[in-house]
Amino acid sequence: MTKFKPSGVITITTDFGHKGPFAAVMKGVILQRFREACIVDLAHDIPAYWPHEAGFWISRSYHYFPAGTVHIAIVDPGVGTGREIIMVEYDTHVFMAPDNGLLASMLYATDDARVYRLQRASLDRLRIPEPSLTFHGRDIFAPVAAEFAAGRMVPADLGRRTSQWTPAWIDEPDVRPGRVTGVIVTVDAFGNLISNIDQSLIHPFKFPVATIAGHRLNLKSTYGDASPGEYLALINSFGVLEIARAEGSAAAGLGSERGAPITVVEA
Amino acid sequence: MTKFKPSGVITITTDFGHKGPFAAVMKGVILQRFREACIVDLAHDIPAYWPHEAGFWISRSYHYFPAGTVHIAIVDPGVGTGREIIMVEYDTHVFMAPDNGLLASMLYATDDARVYRLQRASLDRLRIPEPSLTFHGRDIFAPVAAEFAAGRMVPADLGRRTSQWTPAWIDEPDVRPGRVTGVIVTVDAFGNLISNIDQSLIHPFKFPVATIAGHRLNLKSTYGDASPGEYLALINSFGVLEIARAEGSAAAGLGSERGAPITVVEA
Amino acid sequence: MTKFKPSGVITITTDFGHKGPFAAVMKGVILQRFREACIVDLAHDIPAYWPHEAGFWISRSYHYFPAGTVHIAIVDPGVGTGREIIMVEYDTHVFMAPDNGLLASMLYATDDARVYRLQRASLDRLRIPEPSLTFHGRDIFAPVAAEFAAGRMVPADLGRRTSQWTPAWIDEPDVRPGRVTGVIVTVDAFGNLISNIDQSLIHPFKFPVATIAGHRLNLKSTYGDASPGEYLALINSFGVLEIARAEGSAAAGLGSERGAPITVVEA
Repeated sequence: MTKFKPSGVITITTDFGHKGPFAAVMKGVILQRFREACIVDLAHDIPAYWPHEAGFWISRSYHYFPAGTVHIAIVDPGVGTGREIIMVEYDTHVFMAPDNGLLASMLYATDDARVYRLQRASLDRLRIPEPSLTFHGRDIFAPVAAEFAAGRMVPADLGRRTSQWTPAWIDEPDVRPGRVTGVIVTVDAFGNLISNIDQSLIHPFKFPVATIAGHRLNLKSTYGDASPGEYLALINSFGVLEIARAEGSAAAGLGSERGAPITVVEA
Repeated sequence: MTKFKPSGVITITTDFGHKGPFAAVMKGVILQRFREACIVDLAHDIPAYWPHEAGFWISRSYHYFPAGTVHIAIVDPGVGTGREIIMVEYDTHVFMAPDNGLLASMLYATDDARVYRLQRASLDRLRIPEPSLTFHGRDIFAPVAAEFAAGRMVPADLGRRTSQWTPAWIDEPDVRPGRVTGVIVTVDAFGNLISNIDQSLIHPFKFPVATIAGHRLNLKSTYGDASPGEYLALINSFGVLEIARAEGSAAAGLGSERGAPITVVEA
Repeated sequence: MTKFKPSGVITITTDFGHKGPFAAVMKGVILQRFREACIVDLAHDIPAYWPHEAGFWISRSYHYFPAGTVHIAIVDPGVGTGREIIMVEYDTHVFMAPDNGLLASMLYATDDARVYRLQRASLDRLRIPEPSLTFHGRDIFAPVAAEFAAGRMVPADLGRRTSQWTPAWIDEPDVRPGRVTGVIVTVDAFGNLISNIDQSLIHPFKFPVATIAGHRLNLKSTYGDASPGEYLALINSFGVLEIARAEGSAAAGLGSERGAPITVVEA
């Protein structure tokens, strides 16, 4: 496995929305420890009840960042309860998230990730005062990410290697001969419905047809290949099956949302 | 008083929302004068009519940033009228805001702040061309913040020390034996109602009960201590009394908003 | 013409909204090539069908950034079709956008801009792998902007000089003796209606009166000059005619939106 060599870049993914200073104080805490950090907001619009989406975007986005980037995700309905925190070293990057299934989908896809369970006692090494019960993003994730990005610590310094972690809330696609069934994992600002069906699952098909909400759609190459108002299926720029509507919102038009089933069959 | 030694970090708090280039051009102006500035958006969703919220978040957030950070706030319904600008040196940080009560709540809480009134004539020293009448954030706050963050100027260079400033629009909590009454100052993205009642005001109570919108709520430690749909009161991660609803929105459920009264009594 | 000398600053303007990791992965790609880049979000709320607004804000905002800044704009309904990409060197800055009229309004206003048409074959020089058909912002704009900002390339290295580019979708103001007619190009978060009528077009008027949606409005100096609820016209901080409503939303009150006509006549 290629080792993590910090780039100084940290990405933040949360369910905080864009109200209030919640992401900002996380950045402040990072800068207190590592003034040279380069912090990028990955996404702050993840639904609180849907940590899977955070993991989806992180797993599809991380490799666009410099090797050695630290990615932290706080979609954390269980904050203040017994839920634990995991840290992952994978493909020259480091990831940190609540152990609530958020990173599970990325971990299913590889045998080459090292997973560590954060040990609360080890936080003493970071001189972290008693963290609040409700804002671990600021009080645990931010200082730990700063230490990783600054190259002063690695996950092994703060946790114990584990092969146990909470599974995903969403099933991985069901793959059978001539039929793949997945789920819409997120909807973008244009109303495009983005599924968890990777293009590699569709490659075996000669004439793939996507079925969603009673519509059968052939695959197109790009949005411009459809007439205004027409629905289309395509492999999007993140390498997964997406349902769009030319000059419109597929989500609104089809009445589909996160969690909707989507199937690909041979025409 | 510990002196301000610039960290190069600047935070920006406004009522601009997330539309248009308004915050961006402020950043551009800062970078024109101080290319090494590290600029953090604190919050841009403050209601235009409610500068108090900006001051609340700044006073509760500033100490999560490096010592020597410059915090500027532009919630400024009076821009272009006679309202003046104040600069505050406090606790190794510098603050700058319209003199409209925005920083008043922070100033009430300390005797250790130095307050300066910006003198418009002194802007000549910064070679600021005639500022627009409607966008002081870009034309005055940004260049002044850049000079402070770059360590080329301090508030005393641009203003005169004063002990007069516009009082807050919101009363500080009313504290009586066995009864504290405050106000909801902001609502976060989850619909949690955040009050101006500091935890120190509740410490004297043996069995504190919060009363809001006809509901009597015992204090819990964290969101996870309540059943789905249940309302709860807790001391939040910023050290103030907050009303939440487990897996729901307290604001929607109680019909309460900014300005709503909230009382704590002995059970 | 003053030459472009890179400041290392890059601004990004898109129609992505604030959902998902779309702007973030563009930043990641930039940082992969140029870790020292300083990236500023200019605006992400441009309507997808209205590229003109992106160009309007860029042309009115760029000079608040350091000389040598790279400005990229992705409002790109034609992505994946035959539309091309133009790069502009102007006034010590570099601009890059789809050739869909986005930058046309800025180009009309000057004879001093050098326009280049990106040649896809030249992308080989940047070792850009086959770009996706649907996300040129990440796969073309971001790496090219990084090379420009790092000072490793200039537009002439990647394209051929041209004097042909797609015209604007919106007419420039119609200027006649005693009468100027323009268009509302954007609406800000407060509901202010911002037109494309530059202050220079109004200077010839002795007593200018703005007419919009059946209302005749005298020009004021600042928002504070109107009583609550009153509509007013003013030259805003970006130097164009704006219609506002004191302590209210002009857009909501007048029922006017992007594209609404606005006329200035002599009183």
